[in-house]
Amino acid sequence: MCQLLGMNANTPTDVMFSFTGLATRAAEHKDGFGIAFFEDRGVRLFVDPHSALVSPVAEMVRRYPIKSDNVIAHIRKATQGHIALENTHPFMRELWGRYWVFAHNGDLKGFDPRLHGAFRAVGSTDSERAFCWLMQELAKAHASVPSTPELTCTLRELLPTIARHGTFNLLLSNGQALWAHATTALYWLERRHPFSAAHLADEDLSVDFGALTQPTDRVAVIATEPLTRDEPWTAFAPGELRVFVGGRTTD
Amino acid sequence: MCQLLGMNANTPTDVMFSFTGLATRAAEHKDGFGIAFFEDRGVRLFVDPHSALVSPVAEMVRRYPIKSDNVIAHIRKATQGHIALENTHPFMRELWGRYWVFAHNGDLKGFDPRLHGAFRAVGSTDSERAFCWLMQELAKAHASVPSTPELTCTLRELLPTIARHGTFNLLLSNGQALWAHATTALYWLERRHPFSAAHLADEDLSVDFGALTQPTDRVAVIATEPLTRDEPWTAFAPGELRVFVGGRTTD
Repeated sequence: MCQLLGMNANTPTDVMFSFTGLATRAAEHKDGFGIAFFEDRGVRLFVDPHSALVSPVAEMVRRYPIKSDNVIAHIRKATQGHIALENTHPFMRELWGRYWVFAHNGDLKGFDPRLHGAFRAVGSTDSERAFCWLMQELAKAHASVPSTPELTCTLRELLPTIARHGTFNLLLSNGQALWAHATTALYWLERRHPFSAAHLADEDLSVDFGALTQPTDRVAVIATEPLTRDEPWTAFAPGELRVFVGGRTTD
Repeated sequence: MCQLLGMNANTPTDVMFSFTGLATRAAEHKDGFGIAFFEDRGVRLFVDPHSALVSPVAEMVRRYPIKSDNVIAHIRKATQGHIALENTHPFMRELWGRYWVFAHNGDLKGFDPRLHGAFRAVGSTDSERAFCWLMQELAKAHASVPSTPELTCTLRELLPTIARHGTFNLLLSNGQALWAHATTALYWLERRHPFSAAHLADEDLSVDFGALTQPTDRVAVIATEPLTRDEPWTAFAPGELRVFVGGRTTD
């Protein structure tokens, strides 16, 4: 299994604190890491089939404050697909003139859909197959770019088809919204005014968000396990899909 | 205009020496840089809308010896499309279960083809439009994965359609071959046994390839201007297309 980290904010925000928390878990999840940062329509996608603990790419990500409004990160413990760059999450494709980024925690058994459209897997993971199928079905469901609520509706119809095959915790973003779906393990958190200090659950590191933020800032963080020990993380229910826009989620 | 660097080798090879040479030209080409490394089917794509002289990402690329058999790098001086991450080369798409990477030096006037297929531009450059049109037309021309010689034939038919619109020096790779096309400025070089020392044209730096290579190694380098001052670079003829496989090109 793997670990996911997502961030959605109403103003470009760096994720160095959260990524440091995630990377401490790379001792167990040593089969690669990846992180994608949206900057408006563009994406920086860093992937490395080496552990985030030793990767020079991860080291750069921890030190370079890349500011983004949508981030998806993943540290990998291989279940399906050998350890290779092409099997390292997140995966990226283009649809309707937007980049889409996807990462998955879980294991899908016997999920081998017919990929007859414009999206084929490059590597050999169940995760990339699931992503390609989702892109294919989204493209079939909408002739042109749908709104975020319409996309959420379509995803709500599509995701159970995949989730029948096993554990399917995922993060998906097109730079405008971030969707998170859980079958077993995912937590979310909204940070907003008044901001306070937070301590990483895994490492003796704290940050005072009050000193780093504006009162209007809103940041949502989604993770496989709570990353901090003194903030009100909420667990996803099994089968729950949430969409995050501008640092907030709606019920 | 911009500067291109391509590398195609028969064994994974690092490009730190050549990239250092390219990066010294970033004082003039300050509107972003990008570099894509194929590792088998996978790709590491680093893009930054800042100059390669100051970018922490470029700094990491210069120090981290990523070994690859196909590399495409680009430093940008914006002509069309504002300075933004989504307008930074190289661009990447997936076709037939392979990633394709593209970078362009030049300026295309009035090239606004109908993109009715699965490939749409995310940014606003003439270059990404040209890449999307090429991917669309390759997909139409071949029902399934063609051989490298077949792809070369199709590209030879397609490229003049774009080149009519202006300067179209480009590098394209799917991880199996690297195609290079020039209308105005591109040079190529094959390094093979016996390897000798080479000095960068722009900087007081030399490397003795003889000490770093095996006799069976073959490496082809393609660049907008010769990167070294003591090797036999060959200029592309106007309209010339060359394909590089396993570190060599065929006439």
